[in-house]
Amino acid sequence: MKVICEGLDLSDAVMKVVKACSTKTTNPILECIKISAKNDGLTLVSTDGEIAIQKKINAEVFEEGEIAVPGKYFSDFIKKLENVQITLSTDGDKLTIQYADAESVIQLLNADDFPSIDMEIGENQFTLLQKDLKELIARTTFCCAQDDSRPVLKGCLIEAKEGMVTFTALDGYRMAVCKRNVISMSEDISVICPARTLNEIARMLAGEGEEIVVYVQKGMMLVSVDDTVLTSRLYDGEFVNRANIIPKSFSSEIVVDCAALAASVDRASILARTDKNSIIVFDIKDGAANVSSNTSIGRVNESVKIMLDGKDVTIALNSKFVSECINAVSDEKTRIGFNGAVAPCVIYPVNGDAYLYLLLPVRTNA
Amino acid sequence: MKVICEGLDLSDAVMKVVKACSTKTTNPILECIKISAKNDGLTLVSTDGEIAIQKKINAEVFEEGEIAVPGKYFSDFIKKLENVQITLSTDGDKLTIQYADAESVIQLLNADDFPSIDMEIGENQFTLLQKDLKELIARTTFCCAQDDSRPVLKGCLIEAKEGMVTFTALDGYRMAVCKRNVISMSEDISVICPARTLNEIARMLAGEGEEIVVYVQKGMMLVSVDDTVLTSRLYDGEFVNRANIIPKSFSSEIVVDCAALAASVDRASILARTDKNSIIVFDIKDGAANVSSNTSIGRVNESVKIMLDGKDVTIALNSKFVSECINAVSDEKTRIGFNGAVAPCVIYPVNGDAYLYLLLPVRTNA
Repeated sequence: MKVICEGLDLSDAVMKVVKACSTKTTNPILECIKISAKNDGLTLVSTDGEIAIQKKINAEVFEEGEIAVPGKYFSDFIKKLENVQITLSTDGDKLTIQYADAESVIQLLNADDFPSIDMEIGENQFTLLQKDLKELIARTTFCCAQDDSRPVLKGCLIEAKEGMVTFTALDGYRMAVCKRNVISMSEDISVICPARTLNEIARMLAGEGEEIVVYVQKGMMLVSVDDTVLTSRLYDGEFVNRANIIPKSFSSEIVVDCAALAASVDRASILARTDKNSIIVFDIKDGAANVSSNTSIGRVNESVKIMLDGKDVTIALNSKFVSECINAVSDEKTRIGFNGAVAPCVIYPVNGDAYLYLLLPVRTNA
Repeated sequence: MKVICEGLDLSDAVMKVVKACSTKTTNPILECIKISAKNDGLTLVSTDGEIAIQKKINAEVFEEGEIAVPGKYFSDFIKKLENVQITLSTDGDKLTIQYADAESVIQLLNADDFPSIDMEIGENQFTLLQKDLKELIARTTFCCAQDDSRPVLKGCLIEAKEGMVTFTALDGYRMAVCKRNVISMSEDISVICPARTLNEIARMLAGEGEEIVVYVQKGMMLVSVDDTVLTSRLYDGEFVNRANIIPKSFSSEIVVDCAALAASVDRASILARTDKNSIIVFDIKDGAANVSSNTSIGRVNESVKIMLDGKDVTIALNSKFVSECINAVSDEKTRIGFNGAVAPCVIYPVNGDAYLYLLLPVRTNA
């Protein structure tokens, strides 16, 4: 292989694909970026076995070829060569990088060992605005499970149906549901995508008002922005049926200003964090929600104005979970429904059904 | 104690003094902020036994008194009350914080247990521009020792003499010396100040062209900016005599462009870091310094233009140490003096003696 390319192009591409390089693996080839020189360009690709990212750039190709270069060192190095022209040439298992007055060499791995990656997924798709996809991701993935006890819960259920796409995430303590319109779709889709794939996709999305196509096929998903293509394995498994766990009615419903509630929960959380259950208590009576936390260090006691429809209710919740969900609501006001102290409470919009957060209460001895 | 104050004032003061609260101690009183209400203001002070920070703010005092409040929780809490008026009142060992519709309570410690802190240090002093003090700190403290094997080396030697102040830091592998003019001084001063005190002082300095007075007395140092006063213990001990370790002459001297050398060292460091000694080699021949590193992952080989006076020389250095020192030089060009492969090399200005970095070579088997 022998190619000449611009440092800025190569650096940009390397930075994008290196994110899919594996960082903890016993297989060094998964720490590599595979670079293929063909026709008038370079294709860079990396994968950790779950996510793969590919990016093409223009280059003057004197000799075609394929190499596998250690991702971290190569990216650290190329990042510092943005302003110069770079010549890459191979000699056996060595890559020579020439720039300005310098010549550096990196030891290559065997490109044949690099896993083959299918970047041609195109069977089913749904198309939506980039800004809508970003919001769907931001408002749900934080509720995905972090641990491996039920691996499928580390993913987000994505359902496209009847012109809507719905994201559902749950971790055993809370559930997030978010809906947006699709611009077009091929057929009904229901897949479980790893949260980290979605968070990586969110970082790729730059155009707010532009459209993005999400392709799904045979346990894989593909998203392409400019010349960067991300593919990911999907999870196989059963998700909880939403309809079975969302209450159909509430014995108490409140409407509350999100910012005021978030600020009170925030202050109550400072002390609550010192307690292992991180409990805050909502004591809801006509006209006011009393938000409190009580620990050995002290107690916080605030009153937030509400409109109450139904019975008075007192409920203990995990302060971090409440705080994250309230902060994810971008509306000025929100509704919260309760069915007493030991049933889940549900945060949902004053109008419509764009989002829903369900929170399990914390059992206290009080 | 009973006082009313503005959230913004209290928050600003708490943020400043909480930095001196101890974070790892078996003595909870050192994690506290002591608040004294007297006349028409509050005085907040905290100390970890080494540094103490004090700040005064205006407040309406209805009842004078002194309290000790857990620093971390109080600061986290007050930070979230910047826009409201706050009433602080005590009842026994409880502090009630009233704001808007809320009333929160924090458990107090006994203010009598708080160590007494002398904020009246005024015997000897030197005065310099804030920007000069900032530079003296930024260009030396990174060379202070990090470990406790020789505690005195965790400090910086500060000498004021003949209208100049000189900072010296050394960690056994390298030494940094930086000089600036003083505007005035009372008498010759030679003290060793903890690096962390100096870094804390640097963060307090806001006015570039304004003057700052550094007071020294009986093993203590004091600096005051606006209404914030920082005092610190000084270290007791002997510092290496600079004159004994700085070479008087060099067998080779080069003049080099700092940015070009820094960029080459930076790239060579990426690979060098994978090696435990993190070695880069300077190979200096008439007209060029060859900067290289060589590890199992690859090798970097760059050529940097120089002017050489004296013999050719090859020397192996720790890449991190070289990089940090070169980056601390703000001049366009710098001079480096060598006395062969096994003697220290010295980075110093083309003109004058505003700074000096001395680096010990790494012994290699080659």
